[in-house]
Amino acid sequence: MIYLDNSATTKPYKEALHTFMKVNETLYANPSSIHSFGGKADDLIKRSREQVADLLGVEGSEVFFTSGGTESNNLAVKGTAMQYKNRGRHIITSRIEHPSVKKAVEDLEPFGFSITYVGVDEDGRIDLKEIEDALRDDTILVSVMHVNNEVGTIQPIREIGELLKDRPKTLFHVDAVQACGKIPLDLHGAGVDLCSLSSHKIHGIKGTGALYVRSGVRLSPLLSGGEQEGSLRSGTENTGGIAAFAKALRMHLKEREESLPVMQEIQGFIRDGLSKLPYVTVHTPEINAAPHILNFSIEGFKGEVMVHSLDQHGIYLSTTSACSSRQHKPSETLLAMGVSDMRANSSLRVSLSYHTTMQEARMFLETLEREIRSLMKTMRRSR
Amino acid sequence: MIYLDNSATTKPYKEALHTFMKVNETLYANPSSIHSFGGKADDLIKRSREQVADLLGVEGSEVFFTSGGTESNNLAVKGTAMQYKNRGRHIITSRIEHPSVKKAVEDLEPFGFSITYVGVDEDGRIDLKEIEDALRDDTILVSVMHVNNEVGTIQPIREIGELLKDRPKTLFHVDAVQACGKIPLDLHGAGVDLCSLSSHKIHGIKGTGALYVRSGVRLSPLLSGGEQEGSLRSGTENTGGIAAFAKALRMHLKEREESLPVMQEIQGFIRDGLSKLPYVTVHTPEINAAPHILNFSIEGFKGEVMVHSLDQHGIYLSTTSACSSRQHKPSETLLAMGVSDMRANSSLRVSLSYHTTMQEARMFLETLEREIRSLMKTMRRSR
Repeated sequence: MIYLDNSATTKPYKEALHTFMKVNETLYANPSSIHSFGGKADDLIKRSREQVADLLGVEGSEVFFTSGGTESNNLAVKGTAMQYKNRGRHIITSRIEHPSVKKAVEDLEPFGFSITYVGVDEDGRIDLKEIEDALRDDTILVSVMHVNNEVGTIQPIREIGELLKDRPKTLFHVDAVQACGKIPLDLHGAGVDLCSLSSHKIHGIKGTGALYVRSGVRLSPLLSGGEQEGSLRSGTENTGGIAAFAKALRMHLKEREESLPVMQEIQGFIRDGLSKLPYVTVHTPEINAAPHILNFSIEGFKGEVMVHSLDQHGIYLSTTSACSSRQHKPSETLLAMGVSDMRANSSLRVSLSYHTTMQEARMFLETLEREIRSLMKTMRRSR
Repeated sequence: MIYLDNSATTKPYKEALHTFMKVNETLYANPSSIHSFGGKADDLIKRSREQVADLLGVEGSEVFFTSGGTESNNLAVKGTAMQYKNRGRHIITSRIEHPSVKKAVEDLEPFGFSITYVGVDEDGRIDLKEIEDALRDDTILVSVMHVNNEVGTIQPIREIGELLKDRPKTLFHVDAVQACGKIPLDLHGAGVDLCSLSSHKIHGIKGTGALYVRSGVRLSPLLSGGEQEGSLRSGTENTGGIAAFAKALRMHLKEREESLPVMQEIQGFIRDGLSKLPYVTVHTPEINAAPHILNFSIEGFKGEVMVHSLDQHGIYLSTTSACSSRQHKPSETLLAMGVSDMRANSSLRVSLSYHTTMQEARMFLETLEREIRSLMKTMRRSR
């Protein structure tokens, strides 16, 4: 198997799974229970929170665990809106956000919120000027992703933070689900108020995520109840998932130090290989892009057809984000970048992990070339 | 260790954990990915959904997976309110619901909803007449738990369903988190529209729950995004947690068949033993109560003090629900039953599993008696 769909999800680290198992076997008490067995589970959560905070360069009191990236994004967007709705009801976001941000802001429209969607250039990059022009007195939130999940473009987070630094009533939310462990981000330094993370995108375990909430920022909770996570997110804590997330984050950041150059080399190798193939256009920009994503299209081939062709050879990649892939619509990100409908329908996304090898990259390219040539023949024959 | 806090959480079945591990090791693909690896994960979720549905006696299309009981309750309550707010904005619930229902309905008040809280009798049982009297033309939801989590009282779900059967515009939500696998419930037969379940209360794994949504009922989602779970609950599915939930539910229902009489015997034994101890009053009613919960108070002793005393002997139980235990407030359920403030502050909850043994029950009673007598002495001395 050659797994090139790491932006959809990653293989859990053995160590993270081991942590998860051990916690579930030996520390299964409810962390809210007041007996010492519950206290031990609670201590583990506290330690995990401090570890995650340390790794992110923030305070433990600023880290809240959720069930995943989608919940973090929904909580950030809707929680801000409901908490600060009397301050204003205008939100700025981009045309290329993940559905969990895009739909969360749409959900707010019936409550009197108005949304401004800023566009992107041909590299998929947001124009700062457009955000600046969109800012109003009643803008309570700007939500922009750090790394786009489909094409890998890095957004100018620090610059947006700079733009907002004299506007304390406008919160800045960053969806860093794809960036985490690939592109560093100084949350305090960049003026980020809210930041979403997901464990299963960094070899942790599905069902756990986190939301960084800058000290002083309040959110209206989505899930009310037993007041866990400082009343921001009720529900019995997934102790094992939380401990495994802390472990995965630590390992992933360490792997970055060691393996980023290799990942970049492999990405460059695939980019070169793709550019030599017939009918192929690479949509991921060469500069200011994440090291693990390559988005490209093959003129005249439906992306789905190629996914299934490569599947036959045990090579797994995707057409667009996993979340959108079932909808069989062209990628909104590519359309926003000015890519034609036809090309957007032909798009494919390769996403690497720090474990992807050069040999896998080579086999992928060889198989892809063979499949393109073979499908070309079939198409000519059927004309 | 004698673990008597099974209403807070349970020890995961080895088999459920094994399933979880295996899925995470071999089937970690994103179930929304269109390649065959993703397809296999998606198939497993489909099979798990059918299994859960079969075990509950409903259709697979009526089962939606969530991150747990708190999310299921919030989704049921807020999802109904937001979906049907133009039909009416009146909700009926009881004074003894879990915080995740109680606070979810409170969250709706700023949106123009009015809530009627029906009381309970001295057994903690809801008066049907009170619900009948509270019903209005604009009542869109009645939310009542099946088994109370603090005292174990079983509520008259079938009778409430009967009361609502000619009111198609009033949905009926049942929080069955504590009842699941202990008290059978014919969801279709009882006219239940929505029913919340939690995996970790039945020896599954924390981070997974389910919401039964009767065919034809629509809910406004809390978490929007990639449109997983029929768009009712977006977010990458926790495939392992879902498969482990199906396994745990199957095992738990089978254990019920085999071990319910033993559990009832142990409950009776503890009840008898408690009734012979000085200063003790049992608050769990003798009839129409769940077989795994016994709530009692020891006059003159703070519940917390006794929890910590027993803790020294490796015996774990709780004062009230885990979710409320940190708040150091007397149990609202006991107060609603007419129990005095002082007694409510002295309450303790023993909650059994199908694995609790008679020997553990005996040791618990012996230790409790010793601790009561020893604490009495200390108290007399300190006067």
